[in-house]
Amino acid sequence: MNVVELIIQKRDGHAVEPAAIRALVDAFTRGDVPEYQVSAFLMAAFLRGLSDRESTALTEAMLHSGEVLDLSSVPGLKVDKHSTGGVGDKISIALAPLVAAAGVPVPMISGRGLGHTGGTLDKLEAIPGFRTDLNVDQYRRQLGDIGVVMIGQTSEIAPADKKLYALRDVTGTVEFIPFIASSIMSKKLAEGIDALVLDVKWGRGAFMKTEADARRLAETLAAIGTEYGKPTVAWLTDMNAPLGYEVGNWLETKEAIAVLRGEQVPEVTELVETLAGEMIWLGGKAATPEAGTAEAAALLRSGAAFEKFVELVRAQGGDVSVVENPALRESRPVCTVEAPEGLRGTITSIDPYALGRIAIELGAGRKTADEAVDPLAGLTILKKPGDFVQPGEPIMRLHTLHSDRTGSLSERAAAAFSTAGGTARGDLLVDRYWQGTWRGAR
Amino acid sequence: MNVVELIIQKRDGHAVEPAAIRALVDAFTRGDVPEYQVSAFLMAAFLRGLSDRESTALTEAMLHSGEVLDLSSVPGLKVDKHSTGGVGDKISIALAPLVAAAGVPVPMISGRGLGHTGGTLDKLEAIPGFRTDLNVDQYRRQLGDIGVVMIGQTSEIAPADKKLYALRDVTGTVEFIPFIASSIMSKKLAEGIDALVLDVKWGRGAFMKTEADARRLAETLAAIGTEYGKPTVAWLTDMNAPLGYEVGNWLETKEAIAVLRGEQVPEVTELVETLAGEMIWLGGKAATPEAGTAEAAALLRSGAAFEKFVELVRAQGGDVSVVENPALRESRPVCTVEAPEGLRGTITSIDPYALGRIAIELGAGRKTADEAVDPLAGLTILKKPGDFVQPGEPIMRLHTLHSDRTGSLSERAAAAFSTAGGTARGDLLVDRYWQGTWRGAR
Repeated sequence: MNVVELIIQKRDGHAVEPAAIRALVDAFTRGDVPEYQVSAFLMAAFLRGLSDRESTALTEAMLHSGEVLDLSSVPGLKVDKHSTGGVGDKISIALAPLVAAAGVPVPMISGRGLGHTGGTLDKLEAIPGFRTDLNVDQYRRQLGDIGVVMIGQTSEIAPADKKLYALRDVTGTVEFIPFIASSIMSKKLAEGIDALVLDVKWGRGAFMKTEADARRLAETLAAIGTEYGKPTVAWLTDMNAPLGYEVGNWLETKEAIAVLRGEQVPEVTELVETLAGEMIWLGGKAATPEAGTAEAAALLRSGAAFEKFVELVRAQGGDVSVVENPALRESRPVCTVEAPEGLRGTITSIDPYALGRIAIELGAGRKTADEAVDPLAGLTILKKPGDFVQPGEPIMRLHTLHSDRTGSLSERAAAAFSTAGGTARGDLLVDRYWQGTWRGAR
Repeated sequence: MNVVELIIQKRDGHAVEPAAIRALVDAFTRGDVPEYQVSAFLMAAFLRGLSDRESTALTEAMLHSGEVLDLSSVPGLKVDKHSTGGVGDKISIALAPLVAAAGVPVPMISGRGLGHTGGTLDKLEAIPGFRTDLNVDQYRRQLGDIGVVMIGQTSEIAPADKKLYALRDVTGTVEFIPFIASSIMSKKLAEGIDALVLDVKWGRGAFMKTEADARRLAETLAAIGTEYGKPTVAWLTDMNAPLGYEVGNWLETKEAIAVLRGEQVPEVTELVETLAGEMIWLGGKAATPEAGTAEAAALLRSGAAFEKFVELVRAQGGDVSVVENPALRESRPVCTVEAPEGLRGTITSIDPYALGRIAIELGAGRKTADEAVDPLAGLTILKKPGDFVQPGEPIMRLHTLHSDRTGSLSERAAAAFSTAGGTARGDLLVDRYWQGTWRGAR
C-alpha cells in the first residue's frame, strides 16, 4: 500500500478501493501509518466525499479491528436500537425490556453522556447498584437467560474507531456523515446482532442540526447495515424540543418506568411503541412493524414489559425496590421556574440545547469524559410546546444540589421557552428509511 | 490559537487571518503543533484554496522562521532571479555575472538537481575547485567586492519551509500553487534582495505541466513579491523542449560560457538577455526592461560579462583556465545517436522530460538527494525543433562513462524526437507578469 498515492487518489476525487481503505485502517490501528498521513486522508475524504461503498469498507475495517461478538449460542434473531442522541432521550430504558418481553433478544451496548446529550449508561446507573460493566461471557449468558442485557462499550470492540475518533476530534474532521455513520455502525455490528433499528435525530438538541443532514445520515446508516447483511430500519425523528418531560439521569429513568407501567407519556410512549414495533418485526415476532407496535402497546398495558425490566434490573444488581416504587429514591432540592413577564401565549418552542447545557450545570451531565454525574440532578418540564402559558405560571422545576446556581439557571431556563414565531413543533416521527429485503416474521 | 478551529475555518472555505497562519507556522516550526493537525490544515487549504493574502502570510511566516540576510551594507539595489526548473536550464550561470557587469549586485542562492531537472550548484561545481558553500559573511563580503556571489541554500534560511515541504511530500499536498509559490518566495525573500525576476516554466520538461497552472503560479509569485514590497517580474516561458543544445553539468556550463563570450546560442542568449534586461531595469541601471536588454547584449559583446564571470570563478576558488579554454577540461567518451528509419521531416518536438531522465542515466543527475553526479556526463542535441532531419543523420551525442547503457539510451533518445503532428514549438517567451509600481531607474 502506497499511502501517499491513496491520499492523492481521494484528494483528486477518485473512488478508493474497499481493500485499500481496509489496509489503511488496519495499518493505522497497528501503528504502521503515521497520524499525519491519516489526517490528510480524513480531510481529503471530508471535502471530496465517500461513497456508500467506501463508507461500508471503512465500517467493516473498524468493525474487524476488534472482537466481533458471537451470539449464535442464543436462539432467536437479536435486535438492537441506537439513537444518535438528544435531550431527554430515555427511550432505550423502556424499549429494551419491552422488546425482550415480546420474545426478541435485545443485546444493547450503550454509551455515557458527553456534551449536552445524556447517556443510557448514566441513566441506568441512577438505579442504585445497577452494574453496566459485565464482561462478554456475562453479557452472552444473561441474554440467553432473560433475553435482555444492557452494558457499556468494551475496549475489545472496534478499537480502530476509538483511535480514529480521537484523531478526527483534533483535526476538524468530526462532522462528516460517512465518518459518523461508520463509527456508529462498526460498534453496533460488533455486538453480534442480526438486525438494527436506528433513531436518527435532527434539530437544535441533536448532533445533526439540519433535517437534510439527518436524512443523509439515516440513509447512509441504513445503506451500510443493508450492505453488511443486517436489516436496518432508520427513523428520522424531531429533536427541536426535549423528548418528554424529564431531563436528568434518575428523572429520565423514572419517566421510562412510567412508560413501562403503561402510562401514556406524550412523545415517549409513542416513540417507544414505534421503535419496539420495528424491532419486534425485525426479530420475527410480528408480521409487520405496525403489528409489532400493537404488540408492544399490549405488553406495556399487561405489565409484561415492566416485569421484564424488573428482571433486568435484578440480573444486573440494581435495587428493585426503587424501580417498583420510584418515590422511595432520595431526591434533590427543587426550585420552580416561573414564566417571566414577556412569556404569554401558546408555547412554540423550547430550546433543547439550552436545556441540555443547563442540566449539566445542575450536575446531571459532564463537561469532560471522566467527570462524575449527580444521578438525581436534572430538570422537569411543566409546559410543553402547544401548551398555553402566562407570566408567573410554573414552567419548569430544577433539581440540584447547587442552590447557588439556581438563580441564573432559572433565568436561562425561562429564556429557552418561546411563544413567538411559527407554530408548535411538527411531528415527532419525521420519516422512515428501509432499503432491506426483510419480509417479516419467520 | 485554537488549531482545530483554524482547520475547520479553512475546511469550510473561510479566509484565515494572516496572524493565525503565522501563529500556526511558528508553532509548527517550534514543534508545538503536531504534524497531524498541520497536515489536515494543508489538505483543507489544498482543496479549498488560499487567497493571495493568505499565501503572502504563509510566505512571510516561513521567511521569518529563519534568518533574513541583511545586505544593506552593500550599496545598490540587489536583484536575483529564480527559475522553477527545466531541462537544459543554464541561464543563471550566464545571467548573474552579466547583470553584475551592468552594476547591479546579484546575490544568488541556488539549489541542486533532483529529478529530471538540473541544479545550478551542480553546474557551477563542474568547474574544478568552484566552492558554493560560503558562509553568510563571505557571501556578503564577496557581493560587496565584485557584485556577484552564487552559493547554496544554508540551513539558517526558512527552516519552516524545509519542515513543511517534508510534511507535504508525504501527505499528498505538494502540487498546490500557493504552497509552491510561498516555498519559493520565502527562500528568495530571505536572501536580502530588493527585487526579483522569475522564470516560470511550463510544459513537458517543467514542474508545471499546463500553461494554465504555470500562469497561475506566475501570477501568485508576482503577487506575493509585490505584496511583500519587493518588485517582482515573472516571465512565463516554454519548456516543451530542452533549452539550448546541452544537457549535463559541465556541458551546460560550457554553453553558458559561450553565451558569456558573445556567441549567439539560440534560445539561451535570447532568454539570458531578456531576463538580464529586467534585472538591470529593476536594479536601477536602465530606464526600461528593453533598455536593460540592449545593455545586456552590449556587455556580452564587449567581453565585460565574461570578465565578470572569470572574476566570480576566481573569487569562489574555481579553475579559471578551463573557463578561459573549455576544451582543456577532460571529456567523456561520446556515442552518437542517429535518426532512426521513421524520423524524416521537420522536427516538431523533442521531449525534454525523456531527455532529462536519460541525462540521469548517463550520470549527469541524481535519483536520491545524496547521490553524487558525474560533472562531465550529459547529452548534446544536434537537431532542434524546426530543423530538417532524415534517417541516419546524427541527432544527438551522449557523453558518459556508462558505455553499457548507451545502446538502450540511444534508442530512448531517438524516441524523444518527433516529426509528426503539429508545428515546431511556439515562442520561448510566452508572457510577462508585472503588477508592481516600479517605474524604472533611480
